[in-house]
Formats: sequence, C-alpha cells, structure tokens
Amino acid sequence: MRWTKLGIIMGGGALPLRLADACANQGRPFVAIRLTGFADPAAEAYDGPEIHLGEAGKLARILKDTGCDAVTLAGIVPRPDFSSLRLDWRAAALLPRLLAAAARGDGALLDVIVDAFEGEGYKVIGADEIAGDLAVPEGPLGAVAPSDDDREDIRKAARVIAALGPFDVGQAAAVAGGLVLAIEAAEGTDDMIARIASMPASIRSGAPRRGVLVKRPKPGQELRVDLPTIGVKTIEGAIAAGLAGVAVEARRSLLMDADEAIAAADAAGLFIFGFRPEDVA
Amino acid sequence: MRWTKLGIIMGGGALPLRLADACANQGRPFVAIRLTGFADPAAEAYDGPEIHLGEAGKLARILKDTGCDAVTLAGIVPRPDFSSLRLDWRAAALLPRLLAAAARGDGALLDVIVDAFEGEGYKVIGADEIAGDLAVPEGPLGAVAPSDDDREDIRKAARVIAALGPFDVGQAAAVAGGLVLAIEAAEGTDDMIARIASMPASIRSGAPRRGVLVKRPKPGQELRVDLPTIGVKTIEGAIAAGLAGVAVEARRSLLMDADEAIAAADAAGLFIFGFRPEDVA
Repeated sequence: MRWTKLGIIMGGGALPLRLADACANQGRPFVAIRLTGFADPAAEAYDGPEIHLGEAGKLARILKDTGCDAVTLAGIVPRPDFSSLRLDWRAAALLPRLLAAAARGDGALLDVIVDAFEGEGYKVIGADEIAGDLAVPEGPLGAVAPSDDDREDIRKAARVIAALGPFDVGQAAAVAGGLVLAIEAAEGTDDMIARIASMPASIRSGAPRRGVLVKRPKPGQELRVDLPTIGVKTIEGAIAAGLAGVAVEARRSLLMDADEAIAAADAAGLFIFGFRPEDVA
Repeated sequence: MRWTKLGIIMGGGALPLRLADACANQGRPFVAIRLTGFADPAAEAYDGPEIHLGEAGKLARILKDTGCDAVTLAGIVPRPDFSSLRLDWRAAALLPRLLAAAARGDGALLDVIVDAFEGEGYKVIGADEIAGDLAVPEGPLGAVAPSDDDREDIRKAARVIAALGPFDVGQAAAVAGGLVLAIEAAEGTDDMIARIASMPASIRSGAPRRGVLVKRPKPGQELRVDLPTIGVKTIEGAIAAGLAGVAVEARRSLLMDADEAIAAADAAGLFIFGFRPEDVA
C-alpha cells in the first residue's frame, strides 16, 4: 500500500460517496472531508469535517491532525468566482498561481492544486486506484453494441477531443453520421447533451436513434483528478437527445451507478461502450 | 467582367438583398431567385421567381430562360431534412451525393452544390466579389480596439477553429482570458453566443466585459459560399454575453449593416476587429 490514510475531499455527485464506501469495504482508513455547498448531503453519514472552498489552511490542519498522508479530489466542483471566494491565508498565497492557471483552463487549474498537495508531501490518489470497479472496461457494457457506423462516429468524436488537446477544452463531443453535432467547452457535458436534444431531428439524417456522445481524457491531462465520468444522468440525456449510444475511453473513464445506467441504456436500446485509444487513432 | 448575368439564389437574412442592391447599383444584370420560406419578404421587391429548396430542375430552367451564366448562393438556409424535401427529378439525381456529403458536414454539402452548378457550366461567384464593401478590412472597425489580452484571446479562438479544420465543424469559437468558453458545431453561432450569456459571469474572471467571439473560414472551405458573416445580431449577442469584442478574419468575412453594427458596438464599448491569418498563426 502506497499510503496509510486517505483524505477524500468531497465535491458534488455520487463519486466521493463511492470512494468512501470502497475504502470502508477494503478496511482502508480515510477521512471524508465535505466541501460546503458541493458535497452530497448523504456524505454527512461518513462523519467527517466540512470546509469551504478556499479554506486551504483549515484543510491542511485537518489532514495533519487526522494523520492523512494521501488525498483524493473527487466529485463535481463548478469553477468558482475567485473574487468572491473566502480565502484563508494559505489559499490566498496560492491565489496568483490559481488565477493564472484558471485562465488557461480547468486542466491547468487542477494541475496547480495537485502540485500544491504534492508540495506539502501528500500523495494524490486517483479515483480509479481506490475503486477500480468504477473504471469502464473495454467493449460494450450492456446488451447493445455499436454498429460499424456508430464506431466511425465514435472515432470522429474521439479525434475531435484529441485535436482540442492543446487548448485545454472539454472532454466531450457528439457526432452523428459523421456530422459533428456539439463540442463541449465551458458549459459542461450535461448542457452539451441538452443542446443536442433541442436540435431538429433531421440533423441526424432522420434516423430514429443516431449519433454518439464520446467522453475521454484531454491529451496530457492529469489522470488522478477529473477522469471523464458518466452515469445515469448522462444516459438519460443521451436518450432524450436521440443518440444511439455513449462511448468513453476504456480504463481512463468512470461509470457511476453502473447497474442502473446499463439498465436504462438497455431499455432504450442505447449502447455504452469502452473504446481503446488505438481504436480511434 | 467574368460573367454577364447573375442568378442570386436567396436564402434568409440581409446578405442576398445587399447583393441584389450592389448589382443594381453597378448596373450588372441579375435575377433574384427567392427560396420559399427562407428569403426575406423584402426580396419580393426585386421581382424575381420563387423556388422551393429541392427544385433543382425548376432552377435550371429559370437560369437558362433568363440567360444567367453565373450564380451566387447567399443567405441563411438551415440544414434541411432531406427525407421530407420536395425533390424534382434533377435534385433527386443529386440526392445520393448530397446525403453522403451532408453526413460529413456543411462544408462538404456546399462543395457538392457548387460542383453541380459548375458541372452545368455556371460560374459560382462569391458575395465578396459582388459587394466588396461588405468584406471586413484589417484592424478595428469602430472606436474600440482590442487590448493585448484581447489579442491573445483572438489568437487562441482562431487557432481552435483552425485545429477543427479536418472535422468540418463550425466557424466560431469564444475565448475569455485564455479560457475556451464555447465552440460552435451544429447549433450555429447565435445559439453559441446565447449559451455564453447564460454562463456565470465568474467564468470570465469577474471582469465586466471580457472575452472575444471569433469567426473565420474553416481551413479548406469553399470561400465563394458561406463566408463567415456577422451583423447587428452578432454584436447584440456579444453585448448580452458580456464579451469585450468580436473578431473575424479580414477580407474573408462579411459584415452586414456595418454602420448600425459599429454604432451598437461603439455604444457598448465593444471592438469589432479584422485580423490577418498571420496575426493568429
């Protein structure tokens, strides 16, 4: 074991809860540290402390006092308004670097935060190291597999995301019958999928269910934080958008609530697919 | 003069009207051919025939009977639902190529249409050849010039559009302080700008007016049709979205209703800027 006690810094959504569960099940000591306003209310059950975004000094004290030697950053934290954040002195000291990085993209911002933890001597652990069962395997996950046309769309969307690598943009794109429907930037994946639902169906060449949503890591991104994550909401969005399926890069993407997500996809005739980088190169 | 009589095939918006005006002012013979349901009602003043999208045979007859030897395709025509189009035999003969191209992108679709006209012996004339005064010149167009930071944002957005060249995606992207806010795909520029308006202001680092909208041709696109076009609506959208300005590639972009657009930009403190490709390479 590379670490003895893990601080789980909990943003929104179910991922932080699943990581805490995984630690509990494996008998790995952890402290559940909730980010006020972001962590799911269910996270209170893990009986840990709560901090505001910007309380870096308080966080450092908690990690030291509880004997953590590693941290994981998990869950959704929308990009903050740095000008209205309550920053303690420790966060304030980091602010110039944070602001400079924030202007380059979310990836750059997360790199600074990871560096700060490592600079303090903490190991930064990826969600997939703790709960490997969340990582998407290769191939179809449910009853439906992508057609040859779908695979071409997967390839094109995956290549769009790769081409945007130098610009630290989003992790998602959607393609239908070769036509790029949408590319994620600052609006987030859910908004992007909702936009597709509002496009005329004819844009997908009139087929009842066509096109794929692809999520994959940005080239060069820090893989220990912000792995592409899909879940029931993603599948429901893809169903509403008339897409044929959702594909993510195998092993480097997470599927939350897999049973429920796969059941929803199967019921609607959608595929969920884990592709290999070499399949889309 | 490369041609003697021009068929102006009129989609939506003001561009077709301005082209007809330019021909009239220059004493160049033309026929204003309105696309039913798309052409501006004001186009009826030019007293030309009307055709439905899909009536390629009727169009061929009109061009022949009126003695046109050149055509220009101008104005907005949303991507049609090919399965519900009324196609005459001539259009039907073209349908397989149209469908195959439509699946690759709008650029590929327009290439097929241009090829079809050229195959019939017509010259295809760009809007900027007819109304060169619509082409955006180099530099700032109104009272406001982009700052050095704005120029960096222009450069990044322009490079994002260039990187997407192989995928036949959109002509627009928006960047604020180095952060890519939005990338246009199938939703169109107006929808993309509206999306930025709905993002939290903090995403633009709290500045009152920050970020740029950039439009430029896709690499390799047919420049005689579908030149990037901005107008009053674009400027109003950029104002509502809190952007600092709008930049387009000089000479290869069109500005409609320049006086009104520049007045609106000046009043709100926005720049309108024509950049050179070498400025953003």
